[in-house]
Amino acid sequence: MQKLGKQTIKFDSPITITETASIVGPKESNGPLAKYFDKCLEDEFWGEKTWEKAESKIIKEAVSMSVVKSKVSSDNIDYCFAGDLLNQCISSSFGLRDLGIPFFGIFGACSTFVEALSLASVFVDGGAAKNIIAAVSSHFCSAEKQFRFPLELGNQRPPSAQWTVTGAGSAIVSKGGEGPFITSITTGKIVDMGIKDANNMGAAMAPAFVDTLITHFKDTGRNPSYYDGIFSGDLGYIGKEIAIELCQTQGYNIKNNYNDCGVMIFDKETQDTHSGGSGCACCGTVFSGYLFNQLKQKKYNKILVIATGALTNATSSQQGESIPGIAHAVSIENSIN
Amino acid sequence: MQKLGKQTIKFDSPITITETASIVGPKESNGPLAKYFDKCLEDEFWGEKTWEKAESKIIKEAVSMSVVKSKVSSDNIDYCFAGDLLNQCISSSFGLRDLGIPFFGIFGACSTFVEALSLASVFVDGGAAKNIIAAVSSHFCSAEKQFRFPLELGNQRPPSAQWTVTGAGSAIVSKGGEGPFITSITTGKIVDMGIKDANNMGAAMAPAFVDTLITHFKDTGRNPSYYDGIFSGDLGYIGKEIAIELCQTQGYNIKNNYNDCGVMIFDKETQDTHSGGSGCACCGTVFSGYLFNQLKQKKYNKILVIATGALTNATSSQQGESIPGIAHAVSIENSIN
Repeated sequence: MQKLGKQTIKFDSPITITETASIVGPKESNGPLAKYFDKCLEDEFWGEKTWEKAESKIIKEAVSMSVVKSKVSSDNIDYCFAGDLLNQCISSSFGLRDLGIPFFGIFGACSTFVEALSLASVFVDGGAAKNIIAAVSSHFCSAEKQFRFPLELGNQRPPSAQWTVTGAGSAIVSKGGEGPFITSITTGKIVDMGIKDANNMGAAMAPAFVDTLITHFKDTGRNPSYYDGIFSGDLGYIGKEIAIELCQTQGYNIKNNYNDCGVMIFDKETQDTHSGGSGCACCGTVFSGYLFNQLKQKKYNKILVIATGALTNATSSQQGESIPGIAHAVSIENSIN
Repeated sequence: MQKLGKQTIKFDSPITITETASIVGPKESNGPLAKYFDKCLEDEFWGEKTWEKAESKIIKEAVSMSVVKSKVSSDNIDYCFAGDLLNQCISSSFGLRDLGIPFFGIFGACSTFVEALSLASVFVDGGAAKNIIAAVSSHFCSAEKQFRFPLELGNQRPPSAQWTVTGAGSAIVSKGGEGPFITSITTGKIVDMGIKDANNMGAAMAPAFVDTLITHFKDTGRNPSYYDGIFSGDLGYIGKEIAIELCQTQGYNIKNNYNDCGVMIFDKETQDTHSGGSGCACCGTVFSGYLFNQLKQKKYNKILVIATGALTNATSSQQGESIPGIAHAVSIENSIN
């Protein structure tokens, strides 16, 4: 591997995303990307008694499905990197407690999926592992209950609010292979521009996205047109517009090939989610379902995925704190330069 | 690096813990290890308005102190791995938001400090970084409030309960150097033996500790007597006894050179904490304060630190779930074999 600048690592030897799997909830199953997901659930419980147990089952099954699809024997999987949005990441730890694979819990809020891919790629490239699971989950009901209001309250959501995706995405990252390859990672710094509105996460996270994106361009010498597509994790409609404008002011035009997973996963007209989707599983399922498929089909050959996280909780909001954001980028390409 | 078995990595090139720093709260400042900590606070607030803000300040200052002590320019620090016990790890993200260093948030409950050292050592050995910050915090008041009862309630604690350490530990992990060296890591699997008592974390975590410890012995071909000292993170008095017994039944006698950071940090007679200390900062401060000092003084030359985590939260306990445990080991030695 080569370090480019302070935040980017370029991988010279092949690191393949061997397989992915995605499971989504009922709302996502009615969205425009439904056909790309491996499993679409009919309700938010999936036979479990609580939303938290359902979320654990979703990540467990998504991980298991990705391992089966990859045809890698689970004996040959060296590590699992996983995280979620629940307090103390219980979805991952309960869902994956029977896995029997060395486990690293991670937390990057909604940036967790790319954090997992980043750590996995450094482990694989450095010789610490041959195959690694990178997985995340989120769940609309468990997240609303925990971060906002009890669902039973039926409170009105402001127009800037986003809708936490119910689902899980899991990827198997492997040494060698035939691609799609993880060719570089750009790891984000925490960026806090003082936004305090917990119902406007897109605005809070957009500066972190732009910081990581432009750092990636500067470190690699690339510009937006290098990529067939640039995808943010869950800036939503509002954050997406802010991101495009902020990039413009810094001389980068990303309008033509940039989209946001939170914008893509729900239909704006028929599925009013206000500002779009969010949650670890937003980027996790859109990548593991749609984007991975497009790479395999060669409809995209070079993409940059930048998952965005709001590093906040209910207590910090109540204590008047602003919302620190973070964004981690991974470039995934069908060939290695 | 070499993989030994499924869970252990042995590092052949030198990875040094260049410096550490530790800050502790008032109770820890009256304990037997007080003189080893860099800063002892007089109260749980340190001039802040809330316990959460105090905890953020503690990790921020501990990290800053470790960087200053290390004499590594912060421009030359490539990554920060950090985590804590608060929901969504806000102590780390708020405390370290001005750091300006690529940031990976991690969550391993009280195993987080060794998780951070493990990830840092793989990054350094693989060539991804020259210097990395590994840091954790916990705070008695913010943890009690979040995991158990409001402190104002003055509820009685059962004898098996442990006392969350207020403090933060931070270490600078560097390529090369003159030691103490991180010579191997053994990464734990999640182990759930069905313990459900959230006031007996030691019992819940002891099987994970034993699993990782014995795996470490088998993978490395070492036995307990190889080490000058073996230290668990925060099994406390009850967990420590269980761990010794479980090891005995598997043919390993660790009685002579094993202790627990949660047992060491408070005085049993004068500071009744019931079953001892716990929290990310228990292992984090005992290592960064006491153990690192003993290594530098050559009083210990080979130690094995196994931080233990209970991967649970308040909701999972209320939903009748058991408590999955995890334990990560790192061996730290003054010379490289």
